[in-house]
Amino acid sequence: MINVTIWNEGRHERESESVAKVYPKGIHGCIADFLGTDEELNIITATLDDAENGLPESVLENTDVLIWWGHMAHECVPDDLVERVYNRVMRGMGFIALHSAHFSKPFKRLMGTTCSLKWRDGDRERLWCINPSHPIAKDIPEQFSIPVEEMYGERFDIPQPDELVFIGWFKGGEVFRSGCCYQRGLGKVFYFQPGHEENPTYYIPEVQRIINNAVHWAAPSEVVPEIICPWVESVEENYNGANN
Amino acid sequence: MINVTIWNEGRHERESESVAKVYPKGIHGCIADFLGTDEELNIITATLDDAENGLPESVLENTDVLIWWGHMAHECVPDDLVERVYNRVMRGMGFIALHSAHFSKPFKRLMGTTCSLKWRDGDRERLWCINPSHPIAKDIPEQFSIPVEEMYGERFDIPQPDELVFIGWFKGGEVFRSGCCYQRGLGKVFYFQPGHEENPTYYIPEVQRIINNAVHWAAPSEVVPEIICPWVESVEENYNGANN
Amino acid sequence: MINVTIWNEGRHERESESVAKVYPKGIHGCIADFLGTDEELNIITATLDDAENGLPESVLENTDVLIWWGHMAHECVPDDLVERVYNRVMRGMGFIALHSAHFSKPFKRLMGTTCSLKWRDGDRERLWCINPSHPIAKDIPEQFSIPVEEMYGERFDIPQPDELVFIGWFKGGEVFRSGCCYQRGLGKVFYFQPGHEENPTYYIPEVQRIINNAVHWAAPSEVVPEIICPWVESVEENYNGANN
Amino acid sequence: MINVTIWNEGRHERESESVAKVYPKGIHGCIADFLGTDEELNIITATLDDAENGLPESVLENTDVLIWWGHMAHECVPDDLVERVYNRVMRGMGFIALHSAHFSKPFKRLMGTTCSLKWRDGDRERLWCINPSHPIAKDIPEQFSIPVEEMYGERFDIPQPDELVFIGWFKGGEVFRSGCCYQRGLGKVFYFQPGHEENPTYYIPEVQRIINNAVHWAAPSEVVPEIICPWVESVEENYNGANN
Repeated sequence: MINVTIWNEGRHERESESVAKVYPKGIHGCIADFLGTDEELNIITATLDDAENGLPESVLENTDVLIWWGHMAHECVPDDLVERVYNRVMRGMGFIALHSAHFSKPFKRLMGTTCSLKWRDGDRERLWCINPSHPIAKDIPEQFSIPVEEMYGERFDIPQPDELVFIGWFKGGEVFRSGCCYQRGLGKVFYFQPGHEENPTYYIPEVQRIINNAVHWAAPSEVVPEIICPWVESVEENYNGANN
Repeated sequence: MINVTIWNEGRHERESESVAKVYPKGIHGCIADFLGTDEELNIITATLDDAENGLPESVLENTDVLIWWGHMAHECVPDDLVERVYNRVMRGMGFIALHSAHFSKPFKRLMGTTCSLKWRDGDRERLWCINPSHPIAKDIPEQFSIPVEEMYGERFDIPQPDELVFIGWFKGGEVFRSGCCYQRGLGKVFYFQPGHEENPTYYIPEVQRIINNAVHWAAPSEVVPEIICPWVESVEENYNGANN
Repeated sequence: MINVTIWNEGRHERESESVAKVYPKGIHGCIADFLGTDEELNIITATLDDAENGLPESVLENTDVLIWWGHMAHECVPDDLVERVYNRVMRGMGFIALHSAHFSKPFKRLMGTTCSLKWRDGDRERLWCINPSHPIAKDIPEQFSIPVEEMYGERFDIPQPDELVFIGWFKGGEVFRSGCCYQRGLGKVFYFQPGHEENPTYYIPEVQRIINNAVHWAAPSEVVPEIICPWVESVEENYNGANN
Repeated sequence: MINVTIWNEGRHERESESVAKVYPKGIHGCIADFLGTDEELNIITATLDDAENGLPESVLENTDVLIWWGHMAHECVPDDLVERVYNRVMRGMGFIALHSAHFSKPFKRLMGTTCSLKWRDGDRERLWCINPSHPIAKDIPEQFSIPVEEMYGERFDIPQPDELVFIGWFKGGEVFRSGCCYQRGLGKVFYFQPGHEENPTYYIPEVQRIINNAVHWAAPSEVVPEIICPWVESVEENYNGANN
C-alpha cells in the first residue's frame, strides 16, 4: 500500500462560489475521489486551515507521496513546515506539485529556482505526451485537450527536468513544459501544470490517470531515517578480500 | 510475466578451459540460473552459434528484455540481426548490455558513439551506488567489492547517461561509469560493466540482484507494432470541443 | 577561425521551380550568404551531386562544423560517407542537422533512434526559447514566428536532449522539440527544426542568428586524431608522488 | 572583461597556523593570484568578516562570476545575503562553489538537496576527466593527482548534474562526482570538489586551469534586471502576420 496525503490550500473553495460549484468537496476531495478507486492507495486529505496546517509530524512521517495544491495563500504556509516537507522528500517521500503549486514554498525549495512563468486565464490546452514509455504516461493517449484551462507559458524558470513527459500547447500561442520529473534527495518530484481552480480539469479521465500514475511512480523505493554527512574510515584499509 | 532472453556469444566457454571452469553452463546458463528464481520471469537462453544466431524473429518478437553478453566475436553478429534488435528496442523491448558488450554491435548502434574505454585484466573493483532510490539499486548496499575483475576505465565514450546509477573504483587507479541507463525509442537500455569471462563475477549476490532489478526496470510499459513518421491532419482543425 | 562546411542535398532546388525561386543559390547558398558576414567563419559549400558527394576526406578533415540539409535523397548518401561523418564527429567535429535532416543517415546514426515525427505542410509556427542563457539562444527573443513552415510534431523519436533550447508551437495544434543539443563522442550536435525547402525560413533574421550561434557553440574545443580503446598500465602502480 | 569576485570565509587562515602557512594570503588571495594572470578577468576578493560580509549590493550587482569558499562558518552567512546571492544567480550571475562550499548556504539553496557526502582527511586523489570536450576541461589531461586531499565520497546528495565533467578516485577506496555543472535560473553553477584548507591544492596547475576555465564557462551571456511572473496577452490574438 502507498500512503498518499492530498494537501490542499482549500481557500478558493470557501471564498468563491464559482470555485465551490466546480469542486464542492474541495480540490482535495475531488482528487481523493478518483484516487480512491485505486486499491493500492491509502488516502487522506489535509488543508492549510486544519490543525498544524494538516501536516503534523505524525501525518508527514506516515506519508509516502504528498500531493500539493496551493495558490492564493502560499505565504501562509509556515517556513518550518516547508523545511519538514523538504526533509521528508530528502529522506524518500514522493512529492507531486499541481498547477499553481509551481509557486508553492516546498516546490520552490526543492527546485532552487524562481519557478516563474507566464499566465493568462481561460485559454484552451492540448497536452502532448513526448515520453510514451514513461511510467507516468501509461495508458495516456499521444494528446488530449483541456477545453478551458489557465495558460501557463514559457519560459518556466525551473532546472532542466530529469525527464520531460508532457508539453502543453495553448490556443493563445504559448507552450509549456507541463509534466516534469525530478529526483531530489531520495525522493521523486513531479510537477503537473493543469488544474486551475475555476476549471473542472481534475474531472478529466486522462488528468486523473496521469496523477494516479504519478503517485505510483513517486512512491519511495527506499526511505532512510536521517540524512547524514559522516566521517568514514577508509573502505580500502578495512578490506578483507570478500565482496563487501 | 516478463519474457527474458539471455543472449551469450558463448565462445570463450567452449574455447577456454579456464573460462569453462568458471561458467560450466556458459555465462548465459549462470545468469539463467539466478534469474530463474524470480517467478515473474520467463527465461530462455540463446547463443551466437545457435540456428539464426539464437534470435529468429519469433524469439525476438516474443522477448520483453534482451540481455546481451559478447566479446571475442562481435563481428560475427550479422548486421541484419543488429538492425532487428535495434528495431525491437525502438518498439519497446528492454536491452541490457553486460561488460564487454560495450563494444557489441547492438549497443554501439543504440548509443551512436564509439563506446571506447581503457582496460586491463585482473584488477579489483568497488562498485559505488550513487542513486540509491533508483529501481535498479533496490536492496543494493552503498558499495560492494568484486575481488577480481577486468578494469574498465574512463573516458568511456558514451552519450551522457539519462541516469547514472553506479560508479566503479579500481585498485589500479581508474574510475568508470559502471551502471548507465538510457531510453532509446520506446525501449530502456542499461549498461552494466562487471562480468569478465574469466572471473566469477556473476556469482556475486549483489551483481545478481542488480541484473534482476534491471530486468524489471527495462520491461516495456508500452510496445508498438511499428514506428511510423506519418502525415497527419491538423488536430486543431478537427477539434470538436471535447477533451480528445 | 572556424571552418564551416555547408552540405546540402541540393536536389529540390534543381527539380522544382518553386523551390528554386525561394532559394536561387540553393539552400546552401542562402546559408553561406548569411553566415558569410561572420568574420570568424571560413565557409565552403558542398552538395550531394558534387564529386565524392562534396565531402572528400580532405574537406571533411578540414571541417570544424558541418551543417547538413537533406530530404528527398537521404538514401543516395553512401554508407561509407555516413561512417566518415560519424567518425569525424566522434573525433570532435560539430554537426548541425537542419529540418528534414532529422531523417538523414548521419543524424540517425548519431542518435541511435528512428528520429520519426509527425508532419504536415503549410502550417504556421512560433518558436519559443526555453533556455535563454544557452549560447545558441544569444540575442534571440523569447519567441518569434515563422509565417509558413512545415509542421513537425511530437512524438519526436530522439534520445532525451542533453539540452533543450527551443520548443515549436504550431497553429495546427502540435508542439515540437525544435532545438536540441547533444554531445556525441567529442563532437557537439545540434538539431534545428525550421527550414522547409518551399518556405523562405532561412531569410528570417532570428533563424539566421540561431544557426550562426550554433556554429560557434558546435566548434570543437578538442579534436583527436583517433579514438582508441587501449590496454593501459595501472596509473597507481606507476604513481611517483607528483600530481600526474 | 569578466568581473570575478572571490569570496572566502577566511577564518581557517586566521585561526590556524598550519593553514596560514599553506595560504599566507588566504585561499582567496591564492585564487586571485592565479586568476590574475588572465587578462580578461577583473578580480576582487571578499571575506566573511569584511563589512557587509564583503558582498554589499554594489559588489554583488557588479559581479559576473562569484567564487565561494566556506567551511567552518557556514552558519555565520546571513540568510538575507544568501537570498541576494541566489537572486543574482537567477538573474544570470555565475556561481562556483569550491570544496567544503558543498555545505554552504548559497549552494544548498541552489541545489534544493542536502548536499551531504562522506569525508575523511588526508587521502590522495586522482581526478579523471570524463568529458574532455567540455569548456571546463580545456587543456586538462585525462587524469591528474592531488597528493594530499580530503576525501569526499559518494553518495553525494545532489540533483543529477546537467553535465558531469570530473570524477574523483581516492586511494582510500571512494569515488566522487568532483566536477558538476548546473543551470539555475539564468545562471550557471559549477561545483568543484578539491581544495581542503590544509592542503596546497590550489597551487596545482591543473586545478588552477579548471577554475579559470570554469570562470569563463560561468560568465553570463544574458543578465536580466528582474525575474517576473507576468500576466500576458495572447500572442496569437495579437499576431500580425510578421515574424514577431
